[in-house]
Amino acid sequence: MAQNIGIPKGTRDFIPQETARRNYIFNTLKEVFRKYAFAEIETPAMENLSTLLGKYGEEGDKLLFRILNSGDFLRKAKDEHLGSKDSFALAGSISEKGLRYDLTVPFARFVVQHRNELTFPFKRFQMQPVWRADRPQRGRYREFYQCDVDVIGSNSLINELELIQIIDEAFRKLRLKTQIKINNRKILSGIAEVIGHQDKLIDITVAIDKLDKMGLEAVVVELMSKGLDNTAIDKLIPFLNLKGTNSDKISQLKNALHSSDVGLSGVSEIEKLFQYLETIHIESDVELDLSLARGLNYYTGAIFEVKSLEAEMGSICGGGRYDDLTGIFGLKNVSGVGVSFGADRIYDVLTQLDRFPDELEEQVQVLIVNFGSEEELHSLKVLSEIRKNGIKAELYPDKVKMKKQLSYANAKKIPFVILIGEEEMKSDLLTIKDMNSGEQEKLSVSQIIEKICSC
Amino acid sequence: MAQNIGIPKGTRDFIPQETARRNYIFNTLKEVFRKYAFAEIETPAMENLSTLLGKYGEEGDKLLFRILNSGDFLRKAKDEHLGSKDSFALAGSISEKGLRYDLTVPFARFVVQHRNELTFPFKRFQMQPVWRADRPQRGRYREFYQCDVDVIGSNSLINELELIQIIDEAFRKLRLKTQIKINNRKILSGIAEVIGHQDKLIDITVAIDKLDKMGLEAVVVELMSKGLDNTAIDKLIPFLNLKGTNSDKISQLKNALHSSDVGLSGVSEIEKLFQYLETIHIESDVELDLSLARGLNYYTGAIFEVKSLEAEMGSICGGGRYDDLTGIFGLKNVSGVGVSFGADRIYDVLTQLDRFPDELEEQVQVLIVNFGSEEELHSLKVLSEIRKNGIKAELYPDKVKMKKQLSYANAKKIPFVILIGEEEMKSDLLTIKDMNSGEQEKLSVSQIIEKICSC
Repeated sequence: MAQNIGIPKGTRDFIPQETARRNYIFNTLKEVFRKYAFAEIETPAMENLSTLLGKYGEEGDKLLFRILNSGDFLRKAKDEHLGSKDSFALAGSISEKGLRYDLTVPFARFVVQHRNELTFPFKRFQMQPVWRADRPQRGRYREFYQCDVDVIGSNSLINELELIQIIDEAFRKLRLKTQIKINNRKILSGIAEVIGHQDKLIDITVAIDKLDKMGLEAVVVELMSKGLDNTAIDKLIPFLNLKGTNSDKISQLKNALHSSDVGLSGVSEIEKLFQYLETIHIESDVELDLSLARGLNYYTGAIFEVKSLEAEMGSICGGGRYDDLTGIFGLKNVSGVGVSFGADRIYDVLTQLDRFPDELEEQVQVLIVNFGSEEELHSLKVLSEIRKNGIKAELYPDKVKMKKQLSYANAKKIPFVILIGEEEMKSDLLTIKDMNSGEQEKLSVSQIIEKICSC
Repeated sequence: MAQNIGIPKGTRDFIPQETARRNYIFNTLKEVFRKYAFAEIETPAMENLSTLLGKYGEEGDKLLFRILNSGDFLRKAKDEHLGSKDSFALAGSISEKGLRYDLTVPFARFVVQHRNELTFPFKRFQMQPVWRADRPQRGRYREFYQCDVDVIGSNSLINELELIQIIDEAFRKLRLKTQIKINNRKILSGIAEVIGHQDKLIDITVAIDKLDKMGLEAVVVELMSKGLDNTAIDKLIPFLNLKGTNSDKISQLKNALHSSDVGLSGVSEIEKLFQYLETIHIESDVELDLSLARGLNYYTGAIFEVKSLEAEMGSICGGGRYDDLTGIFGLKNVSGVGVSFGADRIYDVLTQLDRFPDELEEQVQVLIVNFGSEEELHSLKVLSEIRKNGIKAELYPDKVKMKKQLSYANAKKIPFVILIGEEEMKSDLLTIKDMNSGEQEKLSVSQIIEKICSC
């Protein structure tokens, strides 16, 4: 009897068409990353739990996939954990490894571990799957790819600029119109400082974020319920009303933040970044948006977020600067900045907009029909000739009905089919059929190669 | 305090140079696989244990990495397993998923699960890591890549031919001289039949394999100890003495196996394959070798093995035909044939022979030295121009000592460095330094682009 087949909840198989489309995204990103002088690294799927635990908060710890120790794993287990059936306590003694949860923590570990082999500033990209025991739902998987690009060991804002350029170029190559929103943690800290509520940083940002949807009054009510008094609200209003071009906003911020050193330092970073942006050409709209507050727990400077202008889909790329990424592993004062591209969401946007190229790298260009053993030998020679020119080609391996072979070509969207029967073998002129138009003509091998190459 | 850092035993990080070299191998293989019309698929890292268990023998089951169930995994555990501390029994109730052990079983599962979405004959390749809780040792890892290429759903020997062509072309592109050994399970079965010992297939093959090292007499002694009598030995001698060219061996086998249908069928397959091979050009030496007996448990027809002729390193690629790959998952009578390239061993051979190309894809071609804020703006424009031409380039992000910036270029083996100071900004002629020769000259941006592109 056949056993039940299937794969774990939240994971996916990728058939050739899907793999080709995913590769198109990965390869486009890689090409851009390389052009900007980022080099690829890889880390193992499994990390020691000591590396992973405590880095993603309590909730994150629960979402780690743990690997059961090999062999007699219960030997080290404590009797009291077994007796009380305390899963959480037992897990600590029967598993020492876990699947990586993101690429950032393994990267930090990697930088510290290999610091003597690396050249700093270290510009790396990494595209590997990560695993999270999240509840699966539409667009959320238990195994998914992250595509991270980071510079570590340099405070220069040129790195922020280059990340914006990479984002712009990557999405241009993927033929997606995007808006890049930027913000700076120091500006947010400055606002909190100026209004006298450094403790309310998150509440203030959440409120700014809701402004568009809820209107000013409702936001004020919410902020008061969080403990902001009238004086603070009055001071906050100018920030909530911030409007105009990026440079308008910058001037207003300079005024409003004049009493906060950290705030002014954030404004000056943003200003410099826009100054850099003027020297180069990018297509995406870049907007300073104070409501952008992702990763506020760890970002210390720039914050980035990218949205598609053509499809409803949260953020498709995001990141920021973190001043002390490797501190947790003992290497202090190494600043990093990076962004992560959400390959799965980009895939969904491209699908929704029908924006994948027709011809992907894997597309077979020509099929030779199999007419049986004598014709096979002739066909094999022709096939070698064609492939020698770098053309992706195949001979149907079995002599089956012509109709079946043509359906095979159709199913695989192969644009040309070559027929080599008795007559063709004599004349050395082969019949080539254009599967789209249905037209047939007789051509020599070299004419066929020319025809396919120029298509 | 810094915590201990490290990665699990038997796993590896790959720094940029290693990743670039690995990518060179993967990309070379992919390019060849695609040219031969194979399409890539991917399967999840985790499979249900029901898919994996029992497929790799008892030893294999023990080497599976199991994933601990999420949440309160002990809820389903049986008290008696906890009480008796029976790890093996408990594992069954606290883990339902495992990391894939190879790509073949997931592929069989994939074919059955997606059979209605696939076009048969289905030609797929797959390059993904696999995990085995083996004792780590030199050249044996707990996480390593397999690069599998298989055709499923066709009995034609053209598939065997194409796999040989793929092997030949892949290693030619990797600049490695190889010998391809082929054998056929049916010939081995025929020999066992002819000498009246179908039950001793493995013993006979092992003996043939030892012939070179031990000599005929010792092999005969060993075979007698395994239960072969004089009559059987007499009948086996002609096979042990098989010598000469491939076609010599084929003629001798035809005679010696005339009474065995299965044996003759194996000989005729080999003969046809050599006939195909004559129609095309390959560089590797292909040798019929009866001692080749890998995967005798599952291969039913052709058996392949590839060895480097230049380095001492077991098999670097191998495979064969399996008549009923998908039967275990309920889809009967689907024949497959495929080979697996050992990327890690190929890496070791290329390293040993110093055969990696000097210039790998990720190599940055030019660095612009950073002279400070004014020069930066000018440099950013130049950088954009250079990159627009597809050149991998970077601007050192911080204004630090020239010496430090030049060491950075040296450490990253960047061949050219551009200096844009006050003078260069005025004249629009930039100083470019060849880091190998040390020579400097003044060129316009377009001359620089031309120079770098033609290098």
